[in-house]
Amino acid sequence: MAQVYYEDIAEGTEIPALVKYPTTMQLVKYAGASGDFYQIHYDKDFAQANGLPGVIVHGWLTLSFLGQMVTDWLGEKGRLLKLNGSYRGMNKVHEDIICNGKVTKKYEEDGKNLARVEIWAENPQGEKTVTGTAIVALPSKV
Amino acid sequence: MAQVYYEDIAEGTEIPALVKYPTTMQLVKYAGASGDFYQIHYDKDFAQANGLPGVIVHGWLTLSFLGQMVTDWLGEKGRLLKLNGSYRGMNKVHEDIICNGKVTKKYEEDGKNLARVEIWAENPQGEKTVTGTAIVALPSKV
Repeated sequence: MAQVYYEDIAEGTEIPALVKYPTTMQLVKYAGASGDFYQIHYDKDFAQANGLPGVIVHGWLTLSFLGQMVTDWLGEKGRLLKLNGSYRGMNKVHEDIICNGKVTKKYEEDGKNLARVEIWAENPQGEKTVTGTAIVALPSKV
Repeated sequence: MAQVYYEDIAEGTEIPALVKYPTTMQLVKYAGASGDFYQIHYDKDFAQANGLPGVIVHGWLTLSFLGQMVTDWLGEKGRLLKLNGSYRGMNKVHEDIICNGKVTKKYEEDGKNLARVEIWAENPQGEKTVTGTAIVALPSKV
């Protein structure tokens, strides 16, 4: 992907979507990496006994995918300064997570070229599952 | 448990059994700890699609339980010098693993008081699932 520069973006610029397909192995690895061993993320029987349709994705893993989408877009010279998100709904294992982002503000501060990016993940039903904001610094051509 | 001494044992001495009850959480934690992320150890659908009755326990986790049985018995002053085992059959998640051991040889070597212990794990059907040997050093009363 070519390097994106501050001059390339405007409010409303959409950043390239990232689609992830979480497997049971990825959730088990994330359980170990995060320390979140709640059984709804790997034990289908447990999840269903607790009223869920099956194994569901850790919300913070979905937020991490949103972070990956932003840093993929920022390239080598851009910087992710802040990332936050809120859990809104379920992503299920073995279903696409569609990560999206859109620039909502472009501004200079302390000599840096910054942008605020609205970010959100969707499940295949089009429901927003994690929504949040990223603050990024972009390189300038000048 | 009281400290066991070399003088306490004879060939044929049985060591106290240890019964473990592995949960899906324990298997997921063991996957992360061991790096063995094969899906038969946490993904019931995957396991059943591969001809298994359900999620099964990592063989090396069962061997680790046998090691725990031996070190519990050895106490503070005993030492586990060698542990090996072979996989013989399945332990399923949410079923007891019964760990057993029996002294098969008692001998002195290089000034140490040693014993060879035959070890084996069983499932609730009485099938041996992991069998092996431990070499231990025991303290002496003299």
